[in-house]
Amino acid sequence: MKEIRKPITAITMGDPAGIGPEIVVGTMLDADIHACCKPFVIGSQAIMQRAAGVLGKTLQYHLISDPSEATYEKGVIDIIETGDYDVDAVRWGEVGQVAGQMSLDWIMKSIELGMAGKVDAVSTAPIHKQAIKLAGCKHPGHTEIYQDVTHSPYALTMFSCHKLKVFFVSRHMSVIDACRYASRERVLEVIVNIDKEFQNIGIEHPLIAVAALNPHGGDNGLFGTEEIDHLIPAVEEAKKLGINATGPIPGDSIFHLGKSGKFDAILSLYHDQGHIACKTLDFEKSVTLTFGLPFIRSSVDHGTAFDVAGKGTASYISLAESTKVVSEYAAMMTGRNQQQ
Amino acid sequence: MKEIRKPITAITMGDPAGIGPEIVVGTMLDADIHACCKPFVIGSQAIMQRAAGVLGKTLQYHLISDPSEATYEKGVIDIIETGDYDVDAVRWGEVGQVAGQMSLDWIMKSIELGMAGKVDAVSTAPIHKQAIKLAGCKHPGHTEIYQDVTHSPYALTMFSCHKLKVFFVSRHMSVIDACRYASRERVLEVIVNIDKEFQNIGIEHPLIAVAALNPHGGDNGLFGTEEIDHLIPAVEEAKKLGINATGPIPGDSIFHLGKSGKFDAILSLYHDQGHIACKTLDFEKSVTLTFGLPFIRSSVDHGTAFDVAGKGTASYISLAESTKVVSEYAAMMTGRNQQQ
Repeated sequence: MKEIRKPITAITMGDPAGIGPEIVVGTMLDADIHACCKPFVIGSQAIMQRAAGVLGKTLQYHLISDPSEATYEKGVIDIIETGDYDVDAVRWGEVGQVAGQMSLDWIMKSIELGMAGKVDAVSTAPIHKQAIKLAGCKHPGHTEIYQDVTHSPYALTMFSCHKLKVFFVSRHMSVIDACRYASRERVLEVIVNIDKEFQNIGIEHPLIAVAALNPHGGDNGLFGTEEIDHLIPAVEEAKKLGINATGPIPGDSIFHLGKSGKFDAILSLYHDQGHIACKTLDFEKSVTLTFGLPFIRSSVDHGTAFDVAGKGTASYISLAESTKVVSEYAAMMTGRNQQQ
Repeated sequence: MKEIRKPITAITMGDPAGIGPEIVVGTMLDADIHACCKPFVIGSQAIMQRAAGVLGKTLQYHLISDPSEATYEKGVIDIIETGDYDVDAVRWGEVGQVAGQMSLDWIMKSIELGMAGKVDAVSTAPIHKQAIKLAGCKHPGHTEIYQDVTHSPYALTMFSCHKLKVFFVSRHMSVIDACRYASRERVLEVIVNIDKEFQNIGIEHPLIAVAALNPHGGDNGLFGTEEIDHLIPAVEEAKKLGINATGPIPGDSIFHLGKSGKFDAILSLYHDQGHIACKTLDFEKSVTLTFGLPFIRSSVDHGTAFDVAGKGTASYISLAESTKVVSEYAAMMTGRNQQQ
């Protein structure tokens, strides 16, 4: 068997005033991280040094300008910087324009490298919405920036937690709006995109299970008709397109069935449906992946945690897990592309 | 320390054509059941005999007409019957009027004994909606029958799964209807009832956490205003009444926090919110309790499973767990009443 090369994974440092720098230190020192990928950091050496100090760690740095210069040596942090910043203006736990600009520049660098095929995966530490706004960013978050700047037709979010692989018809809208948003056309569109992205990682006929919206799947229209009007027709149409779709399956059964690996993917209809399942099962191992970009990207499912930033108490487990998971998927894509 | 007497727990057999009889046999033979309570069955000896045969078990029966006659001996099934039925008309997996009548009569017997203070707890095996309808019952399920016949002002459903204790503002309605139903008044009313019922089991100032409806709790009105208009005011008013309420807490955090025992109770706003959390965490150990009746009642969270009835393959774990959990709560109530 041909050995599949390890993916090159960039880790962006996130808002430098938050817990990003600390958890990046933890992740780069994680015992298993080099087994999964060739990791390097896009961030600031001075900030990382400060975070390492808080954690009582001494690090060696290797400043590079391109991933081709990286040595990926355990204990030595390959790091790309993006310019000179007024690092003193960045204070733990404070929203700031400089911090916002730094986090944005690091994201842009990851996109530049990803578009040029120089990284296989990007693992992002959390940014601060207000800070990037102060720095002039019009997007509300990571996903929108990545989709827009890479000119991707869609950015497909997948929540991964053990064997649960959960996609969403909608995310950041009220539950009432989400109920109305989950039309036959939109549900079908997401099913088609999931199928395409999974083919791309080498899963030929992924079994895609669609969650029901209402309790007991509406009980034949007794508690809501969205299943009859939208979900059943969407699954039927997907089947006609040759997609291995199933459902709608009641929300309180589908994740229980899914956690034993019964489905390749689950399509949830609103944010909390999938999030409650994954985060209740294992909060720290809930990782968000973004498909549909020229490279695969992951993020942790927690924020900048300004209240504990610089205290050395934040757990790096989520970022390490997210870096490992995105690297696994990147390896699947690479393996697939090498076979072609 | 005064020893608290074991509660007397009646187990109703459920629809005799479903898996009820089999799982009652399993539960009565469970190694730990007699350690938690004094269990007896309300059902049919002939049907139970048939179920035991399927399972390859030989049972001894002790026909009684009142719990006071029961011996609660391990391996001997104390059983109360409610009349003569055409048992041959009851066939595994078939909806029938006789089966519906039997399941109804067993429920009525449990209510009669509960109202007379002769049982502390009732653990119900699943009934079939259509079968009880054929037998002339106008109620859709167990909870409505128990509330109506006992003339209880409310029947408060709690879902128990390990340390998660989840109540509901609404259950069997569409998600859109449930969003509208969760008004300030209704949410407050349920908080008050939970507080009252928990005082009754000896928890003096239960910490009651209210779930948010929208993703990220609406993010200050960005994704829905139900938190601002209804949930925050309901929690504030509860606090003014001296209740230890907190929230609203985003749906994808509250159950994660709750599973480590951070709250005494969680109030979820719609059926699937609480059900997804509990059933994804541990399907078989998800038990439903009903508070607010003159006695406490539990039910399993699966149905009659007509497709596998009589095959000896159904797991009795849920019914055993449900019987144990309801008995624990009954013991708390008894302990409390003995102290008064």
